Amino acid sequence: MAKAKKDKVKPRVLKGFRDYPPSEQIAREKMLSDLREAVELMGFLPLQTPSLEYAETLLGAHYTSDSLAELFGFLGPDDVEMALRYEFTLSLARYVASQPNLPLPFRRYQYGNIWRVDKPGPGRFREFMQFDIDIVGTQNMLADAEIIAAMVSIFERLGVRNFKVLYSNRKISNGLIESAGIPSDKGPDVLRVIDKLGRIGKAAVIEELGQGRTDQSGDVISGLNLSEQQISDLDRFLTTTTQFNPEDRLCWAREHLQANESGRAGVQELQEIESYLEVMEIDSRKVEIDLTIVRGLAYYTGPVFETVLLDLPEYGSMFSGGRYDNLVDRFLGRSIPAVGSSIGVDRLLAALIELKALELETSSSKVLVTVMDRERLPEYLKMLRELRSAGIPAEVYSGDTKNLTRQIRYGDKVGIPFAVIAGSNEFESGQVTIKNLAAGADKAAGTADREQWLKAEGFQETIPRKELISYLRMKLGMN
Amino acid sequence: MAKAKKDKVKPRVLKGFRDYPPSEQIAREKMLSDLREAVELMGFLPLQTPSLEYAETLLGAHYTSDSLAELFGFLGPDDVEMALRYEFTLSLARYVASQPNLPLPFRRYQYGNIWRVDKPGPGRFREFMQFDIDIVGTQNMLADAEIIAAMVSIFERLGVRNFKVLYSNRKISNGLIESAGIPSDKGPDVLRVIDKLGRIGKAAVIEELGQGRTDQSGDVISGLNLSEQQISDLDRFLTTTTQFNPEDRLCWAREHLQANESGRAGVQELQEIESYLEVMEIDSRKVEIDLTIVRGLAYYTGPVFETVLLDLPEYGSMFSGGRYDNLVDRFLGRSIPAVGSSIGVDRLLAALIELKALELETSSSKVLVTVMDRERLPEYLKMLRELRSAGIPAEVYSGDTKNLTRQIRYGDKVGIPFAVIAGSNEFESGQVTIKNLAAGADKAAGTADREQWLKAEGFQETIPRKELISYLRMKLGMN
Repeated sequence: MAKAKKDKVKPRVLKGFRDYPPSEQIAREKMLSDLREAVELMGFLPLQTPSLEYAETLLGAHYTSDSLAELFGFLGPDDVEMALRYEFTLSLARYVASQPNLPLPFRRYQYGNIWRVDKPGPGRFREFMQFDIDIVGTQNMLADAEIIAAMVSIFERLGVRNFKVLYSNRKISNGLIESAGIPSDKGPDVLRVIDKLGRIGKAAVIEELGQGRTDQSGDVISGLNLSEQQISDLDRFLTTTTQFNPEDRLCWAREHLQANESGRAGVQELQEIESYLEVMEIDSRKVEIDLTIVRGLAYYTGPVFETVLLDLPEYGSMFSGGRYDNLVDRFLGRSIPAVGSSIGVDRLLAALIELKALELETSSSKVLVTVMDRERLPEYLKMLRELRSAGIPAEVYSGDTKNLTRQIRYGDKVGIPFAVIAGSNEFESGQVTIKNLAAGADKAAGTADREQWLKAEGFQETIPRKELISYLRMKLGMN
Repeated sequence: MAKAKKDKVKPRVLKGFRDYPPSEQIAREKMLSDLREAVELMGFLPLQTPSLEYAETLLGAHYTSDSLAELFGFLGPDDVEMALRYEFTLSLARYVASQPNLPLPFRRYQYGNIWRVDKPGPGRFREFMQFDIDIVGTQNMLADAEIIAAMVSIFERLGVRNFKVLYSNRKISNGLIESAGIPSDKGPDVLRVIDKLGRIGKAAVIEELGQGRTDQSGDVISGLNLSEQQISDLDRFLTTTTQFNPEDRLCWAREHLQANESGRAGVQELQEIESYLEVMEIDSRKVEIDLTIVRGLAYYTGPVFETVLLDLPEYGSMFSGGRYDNLVDRFLGRSIPAVGSSIGVDRLLAALIELKALELETSSSKVLVTVMDRERLPEYLKMLRELRSAGIPAEVYSGDTKNLTRQIRYGDKVGIPFAVIAGSNEFESGQVTIKNLAAGADKAAGTADREQWLKAEGFQETIPRKELISYLRMKLGMN
């Protein structure tokens, strides 16, 4: 007995990993199918790349074993260092670099799992799904506008009403850093701090630009030690979102950065994108210039985007990206311009469920054909065939019991809305009984309204056998 | 310059891995969506499990570092030994073991990538997609019949005409091994050799059951050294497929195994499955008892299935499985019966392409709106909006050129069937020109018939602007 116990394996998943049970996976499949349809309508092409890549593809030529350990990286077959991808963009760059005859612009989408060795926590996983759209090979701001338009149309298709795409341009924030006299090697750090604005608030950002601060948990976060003048310049910039209407923010940038080349270029690009969005008739309440959007990633070079759910701001950006004109350099030694955006599928799914924008279903089958009498199996299987032929997802009870109550309980637990029951009475009179399990399940909760509804709706009805299909199609709203 | 070269990363994928370019990925998505629909109609529920599992989940409690190296296994974060899954069934067993309240039977499907450290070769990859269906928690042979019915209905939905599901029962082959007096510890080896029948032929199988053989490449394959009597018993068994009509094979087994308990049970189960398939009205030409089907995997305990494409027998079994009643034991120390089947998605995709059962498309967009005059962009974008609103996948040319020929060439290369062209002539007269790129591309091949078709069909037509949508919907067969 002790030995048997030792042989047993605990049925558990790795820390930071999870199963998606049917109730969530049905919703996830539905959402993915909506996402695919939305972007295919806009001419994006699907690409799939391997989950594992050469370590140098993901980390560059001079990576260290420490940086490999920050990924799911390991020495694999043939003694090759490899790692699970932590994003799609590097694989896209690798793909484009290896395809000299690829027609450009290349509009591609890719979705699938990515892996990150983050500290797991509520809603933070080490394996999660991402959905990316990118347009590679053009500097035309029409491509950036198309990415923003795609973000809007995806949210609309998913039934999200109250969201906003915010966009700005790295050339503006870089221009501002330049014109404030901040040394260019400090630029990435300044952007990293500004990127926290939405999460930690302006006062904390200002502290981190200066002498640092102590956060709520007592951790000391060291500051960038900018000068007072520099901080005051950045402070004015950070205030543009609260002080100006969206339409006036670009004017502010134009005025303040007229002497700076990068800033001027950034303003010009945003203006161009804004005009495209207007002629595309993108709802102007859904898109807004917000100069303080900078995005954390180092590789953005131009426009950057974020998307916030106004009813769930605590979720942060659900869909974000930007222009990255130098990413293929690692492989080609020359630049191919590109712009794109990523959705965190699982975080968005959690948000949609919270917003009730997505109905959760637990069952594929709409009908359970119960087996009261094994001798009549041919007749039950004939019903099953008719149901499926009529496009009604259905199953016959294939468990080991003849006990009807247990069969009904199974249908109830899985969440199958209707059960078909036929015993000798029904067979003799050419009828079948249909039990509305969905209504029955609700009945347990039991309200006065519900009772009345149940009577009107028919919690259980015996109908002519030949009306089985038309009755159920009607009940399921399939006509 | 030397330094720059050293910094560059070669854009390559790992050995045994591959990209799926749009031309293949479009077909793959279409196929996956057909597969999902087919099994959801039969009440299978989607489940997703992590790509990485504890090594012991995949290998059992007492695995060695050698067996870990046969997987993509490694010491991951928190110093835990983990590996990429090489199949779904163990993860399913792990999931079921951890869900004591799961309603049974659990009809689930799962698809996704799996990873195997096989020697890569033509059509053999280390990462590939698999699609599994299983019914867990019932010993009812109706479940086995449902798995076979699902295999048939999936192939029919995929447009494969000429296929056959072959099935047998491990209890029959085990019974035969027993009654031939072969020691039970040799049983798995005997099954492994018999499983090669389709690939290496009967003569080679007989040699491997005896003293072994030298294969075509000169490799010596050692034999199992069975006695002449044992080999002759197995030989008769192997001959049943060629010597008997399908309907007589079960009679042969019944006669020859009447004294063997396992054999009798196997015959009884097959008979039951056969009767269910009959009342399910599964086309009897699509399903056939073939006693010599054994499947290689050790864990099967009852019925086993294979599916062959009769026009591509060299592809081997495309969809196979069986009943495994002991797999959850590893986790629970008690048995939960289960039956299931797996498709190798990518191998099947290759087969469908070869059979021309699948049309290969290279483009999501059906229409390219070209940009002749940047000043007119609002009007081009209006066309784009109208097209997408009408459900026609479309894109506007977002590259950096105003050269129309280069824009058309882009559409041609991507495989977009139609291009919309509008210059000052068209705008003045309220018209647009539609170029049929698909026909134009074919024209290059040029046959007499083709020429005539082009004239009738209109290779390029100028139509009233207001008829843009109805014209293209008609051309695209969308009405």
